[in-house]
Amino acid sequence: MNKQGLLGLLEEVRAGEISVERAVERLKHWPYEDLGFARVDHHRALRQGRPEVLYGEGKTPGQIVDISRRLMAAGSNVLVTRVDEAKAAAVRSDLPESEHHPLARLLTVKVDEVKADCRGTIAVFCAGTSDVPVAEEARLTIEMMGHPVKTGYDVGVAGLHRLLGERETLEAATVFVVVAGMEGALPSVVGGLVDRPVVAVPTSVGYGTSFGGLAALLGMLNSCAAGVSVVNIDNGFGAGVVAAMINRA
Amino acid sequence: MNKQGLLGLLEEVRAGEISVERAVERLKHWPYEDLGFARVDHHRALRQGRPEVLYGEGKTPGQIVDISRRLMAAGSNVLVTRVDEAKAAAVRSDLPESEHHPLARLLTVKVDEVKADCRGTIAVFCAGTSDVPVAEEARLTIEMMGHPVKTGYDVGVAGLHRLLGERETLEAATVFVVVAGMEGALPSVVGGLVDRPVVAVPTSVGYGTSFGGLAALLGMLNSCAAGVSVVNIDNGFGAGVVAAMINRA
Amino acid sequence: MNKQGLLGLLEEVRAGEISVERAVERLKHWPYEDLGFARVDHHRALRQGRPEVLYGEGKTPGQIVDISRRLMAAGSNVLVTRVDEAKAAAVRSDLPESEHHPLARLLTVKVDEVKADCRGTIAVFCAGTSDVPVAEEARLTIEMMGHPVKTGYDVGVAGLHRLLGERETLEAATVFVVVAGMEGALPSVVGGLVDRPVVAVPTSVGYGTSFGGLAALLGMLNSCAAGVSVVNIDNGFGAGVVAAMINRA
Amino acid sequence: MNKQGLLGLLEEVRAGEISVERAVERLKHWPYEDLGFARVDHHRALRQGRPEVLYGEGKTPGQIVDISRRLMAAGSNVLVTRVDEAKAAAVRSDLPESEHHPLARLLTVKVDEVKADCRGTIAVFCAGTSDVPVAEEARLTIEMMGHPVKTGYDVGVAGLHRLLGERETLEAATVFVVVAGMEGALPSVVGGLVDRPVVAVPTSVGYGTSFGGLAALLGMLNSCAAGVSVVNIDNGFGAGVVAAMINRA
Amino acid sequence: MNKQGLLGLLEEVRAGEISVERAVERLKHWPYEDLGFARVDHHRALRQGRPEVLYGEGKTPGQIVDISRRLMAAGSNVLVTRVDEAKAAAVRSDLPESEHHPLARLLTVKVDEVKADCRGTIAVFCAGTSDVPVAEEARLTIEMMGHPVKTGYDVGVAGLHRLLGERETLEAATVFVVVAGMEGALPSVVGGLVDRPVVAVPTSVGYGTSFGGLAALLGMLNSCAAGVSVVNIDNGFGAGVVAAMINRA
Amino acid sequence: MNKQGLLGLLEEVRAGEISVERAVERLKHWPYEDLGFARVDHHRALRQGRPEVLYGEGKTPGQIVDISRRLMAAGSNVLVTRVDEAKAAAVRSDLPESEHHPLARLLTVKVDEVKADCRGTIAVFCAGTSDVPVAEEARLTIEMMGHPVKTGYDVGVAGLHRLLGERETLEAATVFVVVAGMEGALPSVVGGLVDRPVVAVPTSVGYGTSFGGLAALLGMLNSCAAGVSVVNIDNGFGAGVVAAMINRA
Amino acid sequence: MNKQGLLGLLEEVRAGEISVERAVERLKHWPYEDLGFARVDHHRALRQGRPEVLYGEGKTPGQIVDISRRLMAAGSNVLVTRVDEAKAAAVRSDLPESEHHPLARLLTVKVDEVKADCRGTIAVFCAGTSDVPVAEEARLTIEMMGHPVKTGYDVGVAGLHRLLGERETLEAATVFVVVAGMEGALPSVVGGLVDRPVVAVPTSVGYGTSFGGLAALLGMLNSCAAGVSVVNIDNGFGAGVVAAMINRA
Amino acid sequence: MNKQGLLGLLEEVRAGEISVERAVERLKHWPYEDLGFARVDHHRALRQGRPEVLYGEGKTPGQIVDISRRLMAAGSNVLVTRVDEAKAAAVRSDLPESEHHPLARLLTVKVDEVKADCRGTIAVFCAGTSDVPVAEEARLTIEMMGHPVKTGYDVGVAGLHRLLGERETLEAATVFVVVAGMEGALPSVVGGLVDRPVVAVPTSVGYGTSFGGLAALLGMLNSCAAGVSVVNIDNGFGAGVVAAMINRA
Repeated sequence: MNKQGLLGLLEEVRAGEISVERAVERLKHWPYEDLGFARVDHHRALRQGRPEVLYGEGKTPGQIVDISRRLMAAGSNVLVTRVDEAKAAAVRSDLPESEHHPLARLLTVKVDEVKADCRGTIAVFCAGTSDVPVAEEARLTIEMMGHPVKTGYDVGVAGLHRLLGERETLEAATVFVVVAGMEGALPSVVGGLVDRPVVAVPTSVGYGTSFGGLAALLGMLNSCAAGVSVVNIDNGFGAGVVAAMINRA
Repeated sequence: MNKQGLLGLLEEVRAGEISVERAVERLKHWPYEDLGFARVDHHRALRQGRPEVLYGEGKTPGQIVDISRRLMAAGSNVLVTRVDEAKAAAVRSDLPESEHHPLARLLTVKVDEVKADCRGTIAVFCAGTSDVPVAEEARLTIEMMGHPVKTGYDVGVAGLHRLLGERETLEAATVFVVVAGMEGALPSVVGGLVDRPVVAVPTSVGYGTSFGGLAALLGMLNSCAAGVSVVNIDNGFGAGVVAAMINRA
Repeated sequence: MNKQGLLGLLEEVRAGEISVERAVERLKHWPYEDLGFARVDHHRALRQGRPEVLYGEGKTPGQIVDISRRLMAAGSNVLVTRVDEAKAAAVRSDLPESEHHPLARLLTVKVDEVKADCRGTIAVFCAGTSDVPVAEEARLTIEMMGHPVKTGYDVGVAGLHRLLGERETLEAATVFVVVAGMEGALPSVVGGLVDRPVVAVPTSVGYGTSFGGLAALLGMLNSCAAGVSVVNIDNGFGAGVVAAMINRA
Repeated sequence: MNKQGLLGLLEEVRAGEISVERAVERLKHWPYEDLGFARVDHHRALRQGRPEVLYGEGKTPGQIVDISRRLMAAGSNVLVTRVDEAKAAAVRSDLPESEHHPLARLLTVKVDEVKADCRGTIAVFCAGTSDVPVAEEARLTIEMMGHPVKTGYDVGVAGLHRLLGERETLEAATVFVVVAGMEGALPSVVGGLVDRPVVAVPTSVGYGTSFGGLAALLGMLNSCAAGVSVVNIDNGFGAGVVAAMINRA
Repeated sequence: MNKQGLLGLLEEVRAGEISVERAVERLKHWPYEDLGFARVDHHRALRQGRPEVLYGEGKTPGQIVDISRRLMAAGSNVLVTRVDEAKAAAVRSDLPESEHHPLARLLTVKVDEVKADCRGTIAVFCAGTSDVPVAEEARLTIEMMGHPVKTGYDVGVAGLHRLLGERETLEAATVFVVVAGMEGALPSVVGGLVDRPVVAVPTSVGYGTSFGGLAALLGMLNSCAAGVSVVNIDNGFGAGVVAAMINRA
Repeated sequence: MNKQGLLGLLEEVRAGEISVERAVERLKHWPYEDLGFARVDHHRALRQGRPEVLYGEGKTPGQIVDISRRLMAAGSNVLVTRVDEAKAAAVRSDLPESEHHPLARLLTVKVDEVKADCRGTIAVFCAGTSDVPVAEEARLTIEMMGHPVKTGYDVGVAGLHRLLGERETLEAATVFVVVAGMEGALPSVVGGLVDRPVVAVPTSVGYGTSFGGLAALLGMLNSCAAGVSVVNIDNGFGAGVVAAMINRA
Repeated sequence: MNKQGLLGLLEEVRAGEISVERAVERLKHWPYEDLGFARVDHHRALRQGRPEVLYGEGKTPGQIVDISRRLMAAGSNVLVTRVDEAKAAAVRSDLPESEHHPLARLLTVKVDEVKADCRGTIAVFCAGTSDVPVAEEARLTIEMMGHPVKTGYDVGVAGLHRLLGERETLEAATVFVVVAGMEGALPSVVGGLVDRPVVAVPTSVGYGTSFGGLAALLGMLNSCAAGVSVVNIDNGFGAGVVAAMINRA
Repeated sequence: MNKQGLLGLLEEVRAGEISVERAVERLKHWPYEDLGFARVDHHRALRQGRPEVLYGEGKTPGQIVDISRRLMAAGSNVLVTRVDEAKAAAVRSDLPESEHHPLARLLTVKVDEVKADCRGTIAVFCAGTSDVPVAEEARLTIEMMGHPVKTGYDVGVAGLHRLLGERETLEAATVFVVVAGMEGALPSVVGGLVDRPVVAVPTSVGYGTSFGGLAALLGMLNSCAAGVSVVNIDNGFGAGVVAAMINRA
């Protein structure tokens, strides 16, 4: 029952067309049926630019095509995460409007130009070349949400001069997404240089005691720099969403 | 060497009072001596309201008093974390201007009124009454940084109606700090209701398989709601700083 | 707003004393205010016998007394978990109606006789004498919920004859709460002997590789016997609630 | 030696056909030989509907066919868990009476209609579409044990309205099987809405810090909602058995 | 019902003093009542010298005295593990026959001289002086079971000459109990020098990454020397029992 | 330098054919060169029947053939562990005397009949059919060392009657190898029934929280039955060696 | 801006060709642009012999060829780690000057003879034949850095005489790289025999509780021998670099 | 038997005063008795300056005094680790020559001036003030071994300018001991700036996910900077020994 339905019901009550008791009975279940609009500003926000997102892992190409078509029909842009090349090819043969980004393993469809109301530019840094796929997932997510983004890749702490060479981005960005595997020290160093929020993304890059990204994750959670918060290992998409939310004017 | 010194040196070069070679020699070490101002906008930011912060654990009352006095003399407000009642009493007998917040284990000194340039109000939620100390650490940190804050305590997921009763805060806040121990599910639920950044804080509240907050931490890192990022277990201070940074206009 | 309030509002609508628009406005927030009764059958169930429960850890004696008095005034029995002897003494000097069970670390107040509608008797077994406190927590919780309970203590798998000596209970009980530390094998053996639900409780009894109950927990989760489900380490209270829910007619 | 044999032996003793000493010797070993019937009500229960169950992993198609045929000859229904498509095809070419359920990876044979004596309907909920295979394993197990079951899939906590839309099932079911991966928060939320037993199943759905289902498992074990017990990661079968046992009249 | 009772019952059957049916009824429960003697050779073994053992942790002095007196009355020697000095003093004031071994935290009572039928001498080695308490627990357990024992303490792998100086014991012993904390390498080295069983005991000696004995445990389980098996961390008692069982002729 | 060489050297010293100083020089390094015979009774023991053992994993078929031939030439039997079917076929085409045991993944060559001097028969039990490969590895190892062995497979604790049906083996064996995955409870139950050494082998059988055998391992290390010691996960070979060492007269 | 540029700029200042203000502006950013030479002695050190190193994992053959060519053009030797046979073949068809070391998975290009200024010979020991690949990675890294190296392979602690047979290397080497999997005890034993630095490398060799090298790592970190430090699991390259740095005169 | 004894024995052989057979018999055991000198250069090294070291934890003041006196009598300096203030006071009342360093928890006795033959100065850096005790343990150990040492404390990565301000030490030191808790990123940054060995020491400083130093340890083991090796958590002593060994000329 939406607002229109509620108005109608109350009109019936006023008009005596329905008893108060039956109206109570129908209203009793209203919270369940309509809590959707109780999700406060969620849908509105989505309409302002955030694409609909599918988790691609475990979905067949057919499922991805079907759901995407339905979302496109409703005017939504679509972002599908974790789509490898084989699956992307299968999807694209049915959905030629879609674009695949193999490094970031993202599949995107733009039906509408996205233009978010932003506070500034988001920076995406990563420590090594092996961290680039996760950084790209973040970057493309941010772009799909309509925000400007600048990148600085391969600026890990074992060669500080490379990071310090990114002075302009360090000075200008409103939010930082910092991606690193192995010891995961880069977010601490960035967090020590700037005074704006740093969203840290540990990656599973490494071997032995990296334990699939655990070492980097723990390093980031224990960061001695203020302003650093952390998302799941390899979750470039999640970091991109957090950064875009922060950057919304 | 500061900018004044650099100007002076170059004037000497122009005036021929110092050879180019000796000037090169002196400039060679300049990066180390002046990188402080290379920290981009850090100091300026601090001057805009962030208090100087001390990690109180492992420091004696005497050390806390000494460092605080020096910071106060420089016009800074002071925030000391993890100060228990005994230590606070010792500090306060020497530093009566300081105020102790026993629940949050914070000690604060305000020499100057703080007034940050904010985007809105920050919400601090926590799941159970045992999570309140960590939530209070976040709340007071936010206040010390000059941001308005609203709280909703004891709104855990096992009684959804309590959270949903916080509708106004859910609709209005610009950032959410969400504190929870045990299974740590509250940030996911909040993140599903709103479309603004959620800074999740796991607490060590629980027993057995809570493993000192690990269960809550993992729950938050695996949140299926977008917009959630996480800080260290019991790190209310860190979450407060992140939230205030996000909320800065 | 409760059902009475809703009736009143609709009466006003019918009587034209309030405009439909204003009624819509008030009803829009109703789900939040009233979801309590939306918790389906929860409150009703409670009224059928379940006591109100407080987690005693981290609460002061004063807080426990205050909350208990309010609950008692509303006609509820009260169960406070994890109350040690010192705290219990402090509570009892102010609340002489309360009773302390030191082994189970429970504090109880009965204002009303509890009589649940049961399917049969619940069995509580434990492996060793060191597991008795957790087993007692389960037993007393079950009693406070109005269910009959039989116990078989110190019947661990290293002496099978002791367990098999509990034949009558094994044959008769409708649900089993099985408590064990160390290797946690007892629930598997009980689950292999009976065809009714077994609620397994790992305890932190042991040393070295028991890792505070982790060994027992993993043993129970990997049980090769069907019908076994598990609660948190040392959570006798939780197991008691699950067993009573199952046993409700 | 069964009851008949015992009677015969005692008749011989009475008739003096066997000395008391030799009878003692034969009876000394009786417990071992006959403890089977000491399994209290186990066999009887099975005959009331529970199918014989095989763990399919690590068994060849030939072994599965052989054992199934023997069980079918004895009048038992058969349930084989963890059978992938290739193995199922091999089995079905020899055992065309069997049916394969690829999503749930179950293989079933019904020789007899199962009709359990039930208390009500069992609900199976799952959080995301990736959790459906485990939920289906639970659902089919419950059906094979002769119980009615209703499902609510993709009702995770990041979109509360979907769960609350399952109001009828929430109000009516006697037991809940709640399946969730990632942060595993759904059982807590369900447990907070209802007052009947919730059997929680963590799944290995997720990546990074989900650690193969560990995050979900810990979340469920630390649930702040009463009435929640937990089975092994991905153990839909086990949860189905527990739920059916609880639902047996 | 013991053997005598069984004989009596069968005599009654033969004499016609009890019907076959009633005898069947009584015998049906016999396995449960008498499985004790079904524990094969257990009791006989105990009578050959093994003392009755109590786990002292969590038992009051009074409980220890009571149980010990009952065992002593039955002619058993008694071994109580994990008894600290305070508890031992309390026990000994009531039970002056008992002896306390503070290093090993054992309390012993000998009512009877123990003389096991042995194959040879058992060796107990430990790596460092901090491992001596656990080694002593093993040594005294072995003595209480009536076996000869020789010790070699402080013979860790960082000074091989000390271990090799124990040549006579290395050549002569029939079983080895090898106790080590930290990296736990000693059992591997001993296992490489001899061709007889090595029972390895990890200890919780160490700090940091010793993780309470986990490092030593893992080292021992991964021993590249054949013939090494392992018991729980700090379980000198358990190792002593295993060694004595092996050494029994 | 062997004993013969030492005798020769000393003869030269006596005959004055070499100076004392040069003899000292040569003897100074003797410990290193000859410590082999210092390995006490090792070689003698091997000559009594233990085969030479190769760890097959990571070795090529060619390497296995080469080393085996050299050992065979020296009169040794050979046991190669962890050899899969493909590698075994390659080895056997070059070494037709070898025999492959696919279940146990062992490859054996017997050049000599092995006849150990034994104390009795070794029992090998396992809990489920999936544990049989590890149990077979133990059984074949024991046989290769010349000891008699009896097996009892699929006797897990969820069906106690099956284990109790192995009464004769339980009564007669001198040592027990007990293999179990999942919760690993079988060694505790066996250890509670007998009073002889139990060598427990955890297996990686299971899923989810079995964590590759960790659950079973922890269960066994925490066994409340005396006489149980443990080897590495899936280490059937190691358990066989320990059992054979114990069983040597 | 390099030194030459700085000189030029200052000459312009002196000549009055540029104003002091503009010079300050340009120098303000100098630290970032030139911090490279601020890396103290790094580049100089590299020019003394250390090859440029690429982490081969995750790089395509084409990328490896491109980067290598550029480094070779600059006169650098090149060392690419973790290159398997297929990738090596692809690289070598384009870069025939390169050499592949399949066991060590290294690809090397020597454009210049390397001759480091050394203190002595580095020893590389490993415990078992399965550890040889990691040891070879260390050995070749050391050679590429221009240091002499001696190896002692398969000298694990279960056969001490083999290690003690390496007396000459034990006496002579200036640094030790000690590689071991399983229990990782070899570095402790070597560290107890010598008084020079031991760089320990745990390997992932083993199964079950070796947990991919964790057991060996913990053993090495807890070494009771002084002088032992540790690198990541399987990090032969890193250990080689540390040893060469130590060995530099 | 020492060299003198060996000479005497051979003289007897040459003089025919002892038969060759008896000489063989006595020499057979010589390796065990004399392996001490087989520890290659160990004792000599110790005599060159390294103090004798006692692990103070678990030793009584009396034991420490006794052992120290014996070592002092032999002319050795003494270093006792992990001695708290109370124990130190007790020791010093009996051993006034000893000195206590409360921050480092070390107790030292110097009977002889130590003067090692060094290659240069060792640097000890630490990240935060809470890491100072571990850094001091390293510094004092290095001094006791006769090496010059410079310190740079509180130079963590969240304020890079502080570390870069230590330019002179960075340029001059021959070895670096780098101590850090929390995320443990400092060794990576130092290792990226210099080309000499870095001995990294994780500390247990931190809370929550620092897991007692595990986060810092993993960070250091995964360092992307070459030249970094790691010791146990809080093991300042061990790092000091490694650094001094490296610095020995």
